Amino acid sequence: MRPPWIIAAPLALAMLAVSGSALSEEQEPMVRLSKLTIDPSQLEAYKVALAEEIEASVRCEPGVLTLYAVSEKNHPEKFTILEIYADRAAYQAHIQTAHFLKYKAGTKRMVKSLELINAVPLIPGMKIK
Amino acid sequence: MRPPWIIAAPLALAMLAVSGSALSEEQEPMVRLSKLTIDPSQLEAYKVALAEEIEASVRCEPGVLTLYAVSEKNHPEKFTILEIYADRAAYQAHIQTAHFLKYKAGTKRMVKSLELINAVPLIPGMKIK
Repeated sequence: MRPPWIIAAPLALAMLAVSGSALSEEQEPMVRLSKLTIDPSQLEAYKVALAEEIEASVRCEPGVLTLYAVSEKNHPEKFTILEIYADRAAYQAHIQTAHFLKYKAGTKRMVKSLELINAVPLIPGMKIK
Repeated sequence: MRPPWIIAAPLALAMLAVSGSALSEEQEPMVRLSKLTIDPSQLEAYKVALAEEIEASVRCEPGVLTLYAVSEKNHPEKFTILEIYADRAAYQAHIQTAHFLKYKAGTKRMVKSLELINAVPLIPGMKIK
């Protein structure tokens, strides 16, 4: 008969691997693409509101690693935001901040469509020089 | 009759504004979203080739400010790359580098579709913490 540790050790390792990966999904950076279409007649007001929200988030929230927003040159009403949060908890905290709630309420009638796409970074530590 | 400078001054200012904006378009950062769909059967090889190209570009080219690539969690064959170049000249130099040409040739049969979208950043100086 094999000593119990020969059976138990792989099991313990497997359990560690499972709990480890569950834990790391909670703790690893959360990356998302938000795609928005804005009412063209409210575009300038939307840009002011979004810029204000992004600046407050990046300045006040250490867990908001970036909110890089672009509009398309040929379709200025179409926005894509690369959102990177330190982890899921940072995102959950972000959507409860006063500046986010103000942006969300203030732009509700400007946003014609919103698509949230969970993403996986190819090179997680990538920065902007 | 008005002195000539009353007519000439606004004209000179307008010319300055036009040439100024033409010049700054050449010199300002060039931002783009590249959207790709990859042949699922070649996905792993594509990721290796893209990561190698990005790492070489960011390391060797001061004018490549970022190439932040993500794939979609629910559609791993769909990629979006946020590309930021210091200016148009940096981009032109980038697409002539050996590492870019190697990537382009090596992945030609892996890329099912490619869309290049010129973009305008909402907050040009935005970084990733």
